[in-house]
Amino acid sequence: MLNVNKQRIEQKLFALGEIGRNANGGMDRTTFTPAEMEARNWLKQELHSLNLAVHVDEAANIWGRKEGTNPELPVLTFGSHIDSVPNGGIYDGALGVILALEVMRVLEENNVKTMHPLELVSFSAEEPNPFGFSTFGSRAITRKLTAEDIIGVADTDGRLLTEALQDAGGNPNNFANAVRSPREFAAYLEVHIEQGKRLLQRDIPVGIVTGITGIYREEVTVRGDANHAGTTLMKDRVDAFLAAASMALALEDILRNYPDEEVVGTIGQVFVQPNATNIIPGEVTFSLEIRGQTREKIQDVLGKWEEKVQIIHRHRKVEIKRLVKLDQSPVPMGEKLMACCEEQAVNLGFPSYRLGSMAGHDAAHMASITEACMLFVPSLAGKSHCPEEESRMEDIEKVGNVLLHSILALDNSH
Amino acid sequence: MLNVNKQRIEQKLFALGEIGRNANGGMDRTTFTPAEMEARNWLKQELHSLNLAVHVDEAANIWGRKEGTNPELPVLTFGSHIDSVPNGGIYDGALGVILALEVMRVLEENNVKTMHPLELVSFSAEEPNPFGFSTFGSRAITRKLTAEDIIGVADTDGRLLTEALQDAGGNPNNFANAVRSPREFAAYLEVHIEQGKRLLQRDIPVGIVTGITGIYREEVTVRGDANHAGTTLMKDRVDAFLAAASMALALEDILRNYPDEEVVGTIGQVFVQPNATNIIPGEVTFSLEIRGQTREKIQDVLGKWEEKVQIIHRHRKVEIKRLVKLDQSPVPMGEKLMACCEEQAVNLGFPSYRLGSMAGHDAAHMASITEACMLFVPSLAGKSHCPEEESRMEDIEKVGNVLLHSILALDNSH
Repeated sequence: MLNVNKQRIEQKLFALGEIGRNANGGMDRTTFTPAEMEARNWLKQELHSLNLAVHVDEAANIWGRKEGTNPELPVLTFGSHIDSVPNGGIYDGALGVILALEVMRVLEENNVKTMHPLELVSFSAEEPNPFGFSTFGSRAITRKLTAEDIIGVADTDGRLLTEALQDAGGNPNNFANAVRSPREFAAYLEVHIEQGKRLLQRDIPVGIVTGITGIYREEVTVRGDANHAGTTLMKDRVDAFLAAASMALALEDILRNYPDEEVVGTIGQVFVQPNATNIIPGEVTFSLEIRGQTREKIQDVLGKWEEKVQIIHRHRKVEIKRLVKLDQSPVPMGEKLMACCEEQAVNLGFPSYRLGSMAGHDAAHMASITEACMLFVPSLAGKSHCPEEESRMEDIEKVGNVLLHSILALDNSH
Repeated sequence: MLNVNKQRIEQKLFALGEIGRNANGGMDRTTFTPAEMEARNWLKQELHSLNLAVHVDEAANIWGRKEGTNPELPVLTFGSHIDSVPNGGIYDGALGVILALEVMRVLEENNVKTMHPLELVSFSAEEPNPFGFSTFGSRAITRKLTAEDIIGVADTDGRLLTEALQDAGGNPNNFANAVRSPREFAAYLEVHIEQGKRLLQRDIPVGIVTGITGIYREEVTVRGDANHAGTTLMKDRVDAFLAAASMALALEDILRNYPDEEVVGTIGQVFVQPNATNIIPGEVTFSLEIRGQTREKIQDVLGKWEEKVQIIHRHRKVEIKRLVKLDQSPVPMGEKLMACCEEQAVNLGFPSYRLGSMAGHDAAHMASITEACMLFVPSLAGKSHCPEEESRMEDIEKVGNVLLHSILALDNSH
């Protein structure tokens, strides 16, 4: 039975993890920075060493292709991304690419020929970056991002996205050529760290992702009266901050008692006006975010919150203005893929657990052109996007084997 | 019986109120600006026209002195200030000076000689200003502010306070000469708008101020975990903003149920870190302010709040750091002066009401060198520090008469 090589995975993960490492032990490998360019070169060398056909598309996504024995069949694709958030960790994104490399290596070493062609992909700019586009590469190949969107876009230093893209091997002039057709693909699989604690708390090594969370965002403005903090008696106040505080606690109360723990909500950004020690807050603007695996659950929470907001509005006499800023639908993963991955875990003797992804991923865009699924590896302490981000090598090895055997099983079943 | 002249008061109030009037109908007469300089010149002319001895002291306070018949007696002083907050109203400060002028005019017209010398005072820079010193003039004459405090101080445009002071007729080189001795004064009286709604709600024209509020301020820092707003389940969160929101509502709850309505508390300034829509707030810093007429009441509220903060701390697992930034004692007004003012109101047939001042005033500093008292005029809608600030002329007239007769009564009783 084929197996991934834990030592080799660890060695490659740490080798890639040296590129962009900062003095804190964190990872500074933001898209299109010199460190990320170095990581791209490292990856291309690895792909060449595996005798894969290496291709950098117009969106600077890096592809490594291994032909199949049946030229009629569509591609089985797997991968992730190698860029990082500022001061991030070495696992987010990179792990999915390293395991994809390991799968290719095991097949190469063992001279395994699949019927389907296989493609490893490393998507450009998955993380938020100074050009303002996350999941850039997967949006480009699924036509969700076009040349018009990127022309003229610059970072705060004035560097043009089109130039940075060209430096990375992309081509803004033929950007639409990056688009891939649904016909070309049989499936997309992506391994990623969980970034939460659900697997860890259940002591389960393999997470089978059921869907990518929907994200709903509002900008909420609460208006009261900005009066003198001394001369205005408590009973005469219309304090916008206290109203906003009540609204925040009302949301928390609904969510803490919600039957599905995969529905979460956050008030992350808060601006108070005039924001002076001796003036009662006259206006507060805050961001509201609700995530969930179905649109219905997000709307259900919103409805319950609206009821409480109405009471606060009447009780506190504040004006409340709400503006929807984002309403991104949840993306379910492919049921057949989930079942296939689960079956491999059973065969390998590893417990697995179905869970929603509470963060966005390239898989959400890939799901618009092919069946997609993700495998999650437990995150220690649930930490991610920080230098302390870590996953255990024994869990990584298990998920790597599930990936390997899922690809082989899909090759036989499709 | 002597009476102030309502038409004349109105005419003078509106004449002064034209100086610094902006396009909104608001008052831009911040200390040491050209508009405030113009107001100073207007006032000095008025004082000269009343045959008073005009003196601008080293802190640029303007004094108008009328000698008494008994050279042994200390001075009866009364006045307020003529600077304003940006986009303020025409009543705050100015009304106290206009009524002091009217008292001097009535005495002059009627050829009334008091035994005590009388001094009208217009204090420099009572309001917050770009140099960072409010109640500047009254602090200077009570030695609470010295030359060392003002040397090198500049506004954001780089204008030196010492130069601005000199331009207004002050003298930073002999700043200590502004200091007045307790021996010199018999009493200080100041008329001011209430800036609240207590007199208005009770329909009482004359407020007798019992004390100037104490002001206690803290900077409170709440630390939680700045985690991913998607991947962190509700039960795994340590949200600094929700903890701060609970602390704010706990304070409100204590104060709304507090038996003394003159104890108030405000969370006016709030900073959230990292303040991003998709990150759970990791740190919140907020200002806490409590005002009250006695130190005991402020401490009582603080104690009750501390109990609730402890519960929030334990329940939410946040770290809480508190730093005292200001602990200004309440200043009781002189009981004899209060009783004297009250008696005049009774004699004149005007209802009066004892109430604490919830804002700071020059009278708080004057109380450190002489017996002091304030008279409040009802503020329409409780508004102040805004263009809509207004008081009724009939109330102003009544308080003017109480001031006039209080000075005459004090002259006879001391």
